[in-house]
Amino acid sequence: MGRAHSHAWRNADAFFELPRRPVLSVLAGRDPARAAAAADRLGWAHAVGDWRQLLERDDVDLIDICTPGDSHAEIAIAALGAGKHVLCEKPLANTVAEAEAMAGAAEAAARNGVRSMVGFSYRRVPALALARKLVAQGRIGTIRHVRAQYLQDWLADPAAPLSWRLERARAGSGALGDIGAHIIDATRFVTGEALTGVCALLDTFVTERPLPDRPGSGPVTVDDAALFLGRLSGGGLASFEATRMAAGRKNALRLELNGTRGSLVFDLESLNELWFHDHTEEPELAGFRRILVTEPRHPYAGAWWPPGHGLGYDHTFTNEVADLVVAIAADKDPEPTFADGLAVQRVLAAVEASAADAGRWTAIGGAQP
Amino acid sequence: MGRAHSHAWRNADAFFELPRRPVLSVLAGRDPARAAAAADRLGWAHAVGDWRQLLERDDVDLIDICTPGDSHAEIAIAALGAGKHVLCEKPLANTVAEAEAMAGAAEAAARNGVRSMVGFSYRRVPALALARKLVAQGRIGTIRHVRAQYLQDWLADPAAPLSWRLERARAGSGALGDIGAHIIDATRFVTGEALTGVCALLDTFVTERPLPDRPGSGPVTVDDAALFLGRLSGGGLASFEATRMAAGRKNALRLELNGTRGSLVFDLESLNELWFHDHTEEPELAGFRRILVTEPRHPYAGAWWPPGHGLGYDHTFTNEVADLVVAIAADKDPEPTFADGLAVQRVLAAVEASAADAGRWTAIGGAQP
Amino acid sequence: MGRAHSHAWRNADAFFELPRRPVLSVLAGRDPARAAAAADRLGWAHAVGDWRQLLERDDVDLIDICTPGDSHAEIAIAALGAGKHVLCEKPLANTVAEAEAMAGAAEAAARNGVRSMVGFSYRRVPALALARKLVAQGRIGTIRHVRAQYLQDWLADPAAPLSWRLERARAGSGALGDIGAHIIDATRFVTGEALTGVCALLDTFVTERPLPDRPGSGPVTVDDAALFLGRLSGGGLASFEATRMAAGRKNALRLELNGTRGSLVFDLESLNELWFHDHTEEPELAGFRRILVTEPRHPYAGAWWPPGHGLGYDHTFTNEVADLVVAIAADKDPEPTFADGLAVQRVLAAVEASAADAGRWTAIGGAQP
Amino acid sequence: MGRAHSHAWRNADAFFELPRRPVLSVLAGRDPARAAAAADRLGWAHAVGDWRQLLERDDVDLIDICTPGDSHAEIAIAALGAGKHVLCEKPLANTVAEAEAMAGAAEAAARNGVRSMVGFSYRRVPALALARKLVAQGRIGTIRHVRAQYLQDWLADPAAPLSWRLERARAGSGALGDIGAHIIDATRFVTGEALTGVCALLDTFVTERPLPDRPGSGPVTVDDAALFLGRLSGGGLASFEATRMAAGRKNALRLELNGTRGSLVFDLESLNELWFHDHTEEPELAGFRRILVTEPRHPYAGAWWPPGHGLGYDHTFTNEVADLVVAIAADKDPEPTFADGLAVQRVLAAVEASAADAGRWTAIGGAQP
Repeated sequence: MGRAHSHAWRNADAFFELPRRPVLSVLAGRDPARAAAAADRLGWAHAVGDWRQLLERDDVDLIDICTPGDSHAEIAIAALGAGKHVLCEKPLANTVAEAEAMAGAAEAAARNGVRSMVGFSYRRVPALALARKLVAQGRIGTIRHVRAQYLQDWLADPAAPLSWRLERARAGSGALGDIGAHIIDATRFVTGEALTGVCALLDTFVTERPLPDRPGSGPVTVDDAALFLGRLSGGGLASFEATRMAAGRKNALRLELNGTRGSLVFDLESLNELWFHDHTEEPELAGFRRILVTEPRHPYAGAWWPPGHGLGYDHTFTNEVADLVVAIAADKDPEPTFADGLAVQRVLAAVEASAADAGRWTAIGGAQP
Repeated sequence: MGRAHSHAWRNADAFFELPRRPVLSVLAGRDPARAAAAADRLGWAHAVGDWRQLLERDDVDLIDICTPGDSHAEIAIAALGAGKHVLCEKPLANTVAEAEAMAGAAEAAARNGVRSMVGFSYRRVPALALARKLVAQGRIGTIRHVRAQYLQDWLADPAAPLSWRLERARAGSGALGDIGAHIIDATRFVTGEALTGVCALLDTFVTERPLPDRPGSGPVTVDDAALFLGRLSGGGLASFEATRMAAGRKNALRLELNGTRGSLVFDLESLNELWFHDHTEEPELAGFRRILVTEPRHPYAGAWWPPGHGLGYDHTFTNEVADLVVAIAADKDPEPTFADGLAVQRVLAAVEASAADAGRWTAIGGAQP
Repeated sequence: MGRAHSHAWRNADAFFELPRRPVLSVLAGRDPARAAAAADRLGWAHAVGDWRQLLERDDVDLIDICTPGDSHAEIAIAALGAGKHVLCEKPLANTVAEAEAMAGAAEAAARNGVRSMVGFSYRRVPALALARKLVAQGRIGTIRHVRAQYLQDWLADPAAPLSWRLERARAGSGALGDIGAHIIDATRFVTGEALTGVCALLDTFVTERPLPDRPGSGPVTVDDAALFLGRLSGGGLASFEATRMAAGRKNALRLELNGTRGSLVFDLESLNELWFHDHTEEPELAGFRRILVTEPRHPYAGAWWPPGHGLGYDHTFTNEVADLVVAIAADKDPEPTFADGLAVQRVLAAVEASAADAGRWTAIGGAQP
Repeated sequence: MGRAHSHAWRNADAFFELPRRPVLSVLAGRDPARAAAAADRLGWAHAVGDWRQLLERDDVDLIDICTPGDSHAEIAIAALGAGKHVLCEKPLANTVAEAEAMAGAAEAAARNGVRSMVGFSYRRVPALALARKLVAQGRIGTIRHVRAQYLQDWLADPAAPLSWRLERARAGSGALGDIGAHIIDATRFVTGEALTGVCALLDTFVTERPLPDRPGSGPVTVDDAALFLGRLSGGGLASFEATRMAAGRKNALRLELNGTRGSLVFDLESLNELWFHDHTEEPELAGFRRILVTEPRHPYAGAWWPPGHGLGYDHTFTNEVADLVVAIAADKDPEPTFADGLAVQRVLAAVEASAADAGRWTAIGGAQP
């Protein structure tokens, strides 16, 4: 993740007309030697062995947090307190309580012009940004249905080792927080609506896995798959599925929306495409059209290559930091805010609560979009 | 539906080597004049104005029931009692009680060599029959996930009239029984497993619609959409969605299965295709392959046209009656049996019970496959 | 082919409101016993051992010719001379001379109200009929490019036997006449334009094959593949490829048209779909849309099943004979006429002439559409 | 193009384990002020106003030529003569004579350890590199057919201005050299075979266009579209089409290969996918499979992101310069060589000669792969 963020900071200025030029000052890591090697490789001027050192440096205006979720709250709150802008990887935190504290700190800092953003980078996929725009323009009308899935298969093999992502203490949850968080945020982003409640089932298919670093095996303490149904604040129904056991699906973040005036379909495995059905079209000619979201007028695409030349995974990060720099320079809050991150966290908590209560409907309170 | 079944009976003998030749004897309808006209058009030798007349005729060996669901039980039980084989359209009945009575009658009749079948015709789509075969052969291993959807859009327009399908008294339920029943049966058929319970949400988006035959409007008393999560008897997780409000989806009965050794994907809008991912393949070359299920070795396809020449909707009925005739001649019970129809009915009832109880997990008992 | 035509005649009346009801009177074949068995199976009232007997019968109004191409001219000219309407399978003949004689006979017969039609049945695929309509309406503007392919793979295996289709004396040509004829006709039909000339390459990859009925092998005397470039009468460029050696392509008759205002794409392997790009659409939302050609307003589709219920290969024949019956009753010439069949034959001849002359441009004269 | 190459040089070292680290020393442009601004934006340390200055600098080891084709020969020959390695954008030159001179200079320089490469960057699309590997492994057997197309639509609008790309003196040819060159190289690369001759048609649909910089219009002196048929050195047939008038096609470089044992399909609009049909598979399960070429074992993909995370257009350049650096350090000739560029140039010349001679077969001599 550090490599992806470094790439974004290193390249944003070559593609976007930014009001301020990003400078890659200091990379912090726990092991000073490894941090120095990474800094050299990735283009950072300096390296330090403790993130706390960043707080006092004058050559650091912004801290980009790429650590596991259990350290997000501490670092982000300290950074904001030190007057540094913050970009924090998703999910915002491992618990609602942490996320609430972070959202509070972000709100306080913003009053002093210190900005924060949570890294749901798929908001910067041009096709999803276009989808949001079309929904906001009313092109699909009132949303009746959302079908959101994030399907991967890297845990389909029961011999895959017990990484930290499979330990509840460090990862918070399994497929739910890792990839389910993305489809929750994508749904909020594209629809502009909140989830009002869920009915959920969680399951762990492979309950014990080999240890990664020594003989023997250990228990998997997070979910392998999370399925939940929900309702949107606008009255629509939604279904969600996150799994890392879907053989053959590599990175299938899929979103389908059906509205009263049209439908939209996206799949991250074909990230330069958005499918749009205009239900107001004459029926004889209506159908799902494949929009190649690579044209000059499309979100972000104009900053990059000629028409028809697709982007990849890393461009979403470059787009993200470009938006962040623009927002900071304009003295505005960038999106998604820590409040958005908190809203996602509340959904994750409700999913776990419902699953623990036989799937019963669990309402979600808190801030709405 | 009568037209589709007549077509099947009229043509099965020209494509399949049947042990007995079907003869289209008598068409029964409520209105004698309309029945006579339909018989003339569709190739039936005679017409009568009351289905009860069929029970006593010597030139009737089998009764094919194409009426709405609220009359299935009465007709089927009477027919079986009169020693006539029965093909009954789906869903088997409007209630579990009716379905139980029918399954009991079928079991009793079978002891006398009188056969019965419920018309889940999509079992005879070659691609779904191939999917079942591959699952039974272990080609996808243990099933982890089923994703089943039946998406249509003919009720997306709020001005669509209040047909009998929107009245609870006659239709039993809405999208749930009409099209949800198909994906429940398809899941049971392809996986060979039962559903052990569900968490469900139902909703009606358009609660009042114009009357079809006179000014004014009336209440919609069935669901527009049914979403439910479930578990399979083999331990997998399943999600289901049936809706007639998915703009742009015309007849999208979709089924995706992910197993430990592979995955399968089907969409009725492309009914001659089955997608198969073999997870035991070398990873460098693995991927979802599009099998055109039109080749001589494929189920049913060999009876029809040269390689590559696709079938359509009506061929499923022709395949169905061919299987039925073969089973009768072999003195065996054809599938799906009335017990299969009952099993689907029990799922439908559990969905409604769960939805009425805030989505809480509702176990499904009764006969398993 | 006889089975497909019989199916069409047997069923057309059940789906279309025909002005006259087809009656399946007499099936003619060389072997009386086999003809009688086929007649019984396929629904014909009588059978005879010589097609000439049909000419004198009062219970025969129309003769449907399903024999190999080398007998088309003799039978069709005799039938028209006897005052029988004629439906003749494609290609119309094996030579331009035969086709000219047939077209002349058809024109003469038409003056007496005796009608003829050549069986390019793919004109009755709803998606291709819709494509033609859109072109005629100007929806894609002036045509710049046609890309037409017919790809099959049943000869990819060098051990496939030497059938009559691989003998020049009986089949006329190989992939060129068998499937190339279809894409030539489809191009003429959809564009409404003629081909003005071609540059062509032909090749035979497997020059000797095992005999089908006894040990030993014999020479393949027709082409395995035909590739040609051409120009349309409206100024566009076209490329054509017909092959039976394209591994994995079962029945891929593909047509892509690019015009000044839009584009159309069709593939027979997905016969219920037409892809349409509207180039006048706002660029941000433009893209190829998948039209499911299964809706009530679509050509032919309204006669069959509810929305979204796809058709198959055989429906094209049923649609074809329905159109033929309507034309006869209306005392009009049905399309495609024998003149259309002759125009295709002229293209086939020009392809062979160009290939024999090092691919040089060979102009095509004769009747234009 | 300079931006794409700069991006590649700036980032290669962060993703590949390179034996030498690229340093962005000097950017040369005609206008010193613009060159300086570009250097600042794109990460170059210095800027100069004349490319000749690069020849004498000690801090320049390699010259990357991104100018239009009419200056390639002069710059490349001078650079090689000065002992600088060269990367030259495609097409290698505007004429066969220039290309021959360049290939000669490259061969001479190589004897002194000075390396050269022509920038057919699509060779570094992981899916095409995988395709080449599969062909080389014999996975599709002997190639029968190649279908190569490069379809764009940015000239479909007759109001698009008369850019330098539409002037023969500067661009050499139109769609032929601009995008046709790519499909010729891709065919050579993937098949490992040469083209032995062609039959070709060229056309210009819009013969006059508005001037880009002042009122009035001027003549288009290059082709809008190039179609040609060819034969491969291994006996297969090939068809090629390059056009910038295919409405709705943005960047559709498509390649389909059919061999005796299988087939491969690629489309640059979905650049992370390769479709493979294994014809030796059991027929019941055979079909085109979609390989997501994003996995660790795939060419280039392992250097980038986790499984399933796709690449975009610019990654091909980064992959290209990484390969170039590796080859230089290993003292080997990188591919594609200038001899490869010359071979493409010979095909372009044969296409023009055939088109000028009524499409007649024109043989291609010279170096084979």
